[in-house]
Amino acid sequence: MSKDFSKGAAWIRGDIVPIHEAKIGVTDWALTHSDVTYDVVPVWNRAFFRLGDYLDRFEASMTACHMDVGMDRAAIESALHDMVAGSGLDAAYVAMVAARGVPIIPGSRDPRDCANHFYAWCVPYVHVVKPEIAEAGVAVMLPDTVRRIPEDSVNPLVKNYHWGDFTQGLFAAKAAGFETVLLPDHAGNVTEGPGFNVFALKGNRVITPERGVLHGITRRTVLELAEAQGFSVEERTLPVAELMEADEVFLSSSGGGVIPVARINDRQFSNGAAGAQALRLRQAYWALMQDSRYLTKVKSAV
Amino acid sequence: MSKDFSKGAAWIRGDIVPIHEAKIGVTDWALTHSDVTYDVVPVWNRAFFRLGDYLDRFEASMTACHMDVGMDRAAIESALHDMVAGSGLDAAYVAMVAARGVPIIPGSRDPRDCANHFYAWCVPYVHVVKPEIAEAGVAVMLPDTVRRIPEDSVNPLVKNYHWGDFTQGLFAAKAAGFETVLLPDHAGNVTEGPGFNVFALKGNRVITPERGVLHGITRRTVLELAEAQGFSVEERTLPVAELMEADEVFLSSSGGGVIPVARINDRQFSNGAAGAQALRLRQAYWALMQDSRYLTKVKSAV
Repeated sequence: MSKDFSKGAAWIRGDIVPIHEAKIGVTDWALTHSDVTYDVVPVWNRAFFRLGDYLDRFEASMTACHMDVGMDRAAIESALHDMVAGSGLDAAYVAMVAARGVPIIPGSRDPRDCANHFYAWCVPYVHVVKPEIAEAGVAVMLPDTVRRIPEDSVNPLVKNYHWGDFTQGLFAAKAAGFETVLLPDHAGNVTEGPGFNVFALKGNRVITPERGVLHGITRRTVLELAEAQGFSVEERTLPVAELMEADEVFLSSSGGGVIPVARINDRQFSNGAAGAQALRLRQAYWALMQDSRYLTKVKSAV
Repeated sequence: MSKDFSKGAAWIRGDIVPIHEAKIGVTDWALTHSDVTYDVVPVWNRAFFRLGDYLDRFEASMTACHMDVGMDRAAIESALHDMVAGSGLDAAYVAMVAARGVPIIPGSRDPRDCANHFYAWCVPYVHVVKPEIAEAGVAVMLPDTVRRIPEDSVNPLVKNYHWGDFTQGLFAAKAAGFETVLLPDHAGNVTEGPGFNVFALKGNRVITPERGVLHGITRRTVLELAEAQGFSVEERTLPVAELMEADEVFLSSSGGGVIPVARINDRQFSNGAAGAQALRLRQAYWALMQDSRYLTKVKSAV
């Protein structure tokens, strides 16, 4: 009777199944039009971190996509609890997904005709950058050949799977020996990378891009922590040239918290190591991940 | 023993299955990063149309994406034949897909670590615009709020599922009573729509956008037909303002051939009906779909 949930679990059509059994149809517009929105909440020590904030954003994303998955917030939250509890994972990457589905009227090309649906899945906690690399400071490529999809093409505030620009950038970065990639926009400002936001630290100021990027929940957490540590926080356009003049640079992701950057292209920061302030924020983030004010314990399934 | 293939069939992991049984995992990067390339070849009267051209483009797309699905051209062609023959469909929309897959190393964020794979599916022939609407001339919205994803973000020559811009445009178009949508680029030129290219006819000239669009096989066929009919053909940047001054406008898609446009926003073409030249090209396209020089008969499975 016992199934193998060691690699993760999924909630799909009301069932909780091992992750490798969770599948969607090849004609689902989630796949064929990348017509899907999602969110990812971290679980640490059997507790969701800032669950309400992630659910708020997920609900806003579904509304922006004109999607109705036929489940209210309580039902979604309950599915997440049941799934994580069922998986037995203590620390997990938990994805909730709203998919366009397929048209009820065969052959229709009208997105309004589709049967939207919800599913969720969790796998052991994912570090966007491995902790040992993050703590040494990561090397990032900022190419000038690939630019982030602009916000008037695909809205980055609605978390989405349009990663073609990131993937192309990642191939270039990996080929050149970098760990990951940061993309500029079409006006020469920095935006974000695959799964993370970016911050420049200069003197007493912490600056992060405001437009053309996802407003990450971890980004928000980091801004709150930076303010609490006495930094002045600026959310605004961040030119690449200004980023390159920063004292320290770091990334934020729900998959790992604060990730110090040691190098972008040929430019070293903090003498090619993790910056002292970034490491301090990293520690503060991990402490907060255990702060009961932000935690929702995973409830066992009935 | 007999399965229901009336809604379509798929070739997946070497098996031919009814379309609703064809599924991929929820963690496949084809879905979670829209890291996938594909092509679609039409089948009419049990024959593939321009199959070699579609396979050429699909192979070029896989190379551009650094994908190796472990099947050569002959194996892919054979899979398509077996699937369409097995489906029993006389006229079909046939999709071939190369998917990034999932990392062989769990937790890896490196696209080079993924096990790429191929699958295919076919459904009864799809008309991007219903024939009766196409023949009357279609009403198209060209919004100024959504712009096509630029080519230095996602390369449109590599056929892809990044349709977020189209989907947003379609919702706006449908809400305003239009059939479909055409997107401008960021410089005010027209690009393409969801599943089709666009052409302006002015006097003796046929003009179609060259950059920032898929180079459709149907687009190529239409340009060949237009030249054969004595038109001068121009592949170049096409400003929206110039499009709006055309004598006739039409679309091209493997899902329906030439589709006359009766209206874009408030501007009527050909007195709000299908243009005479566009209808003539439409007829020529359908005649060519039965020209043995372009056909590859579907071979029955052994």
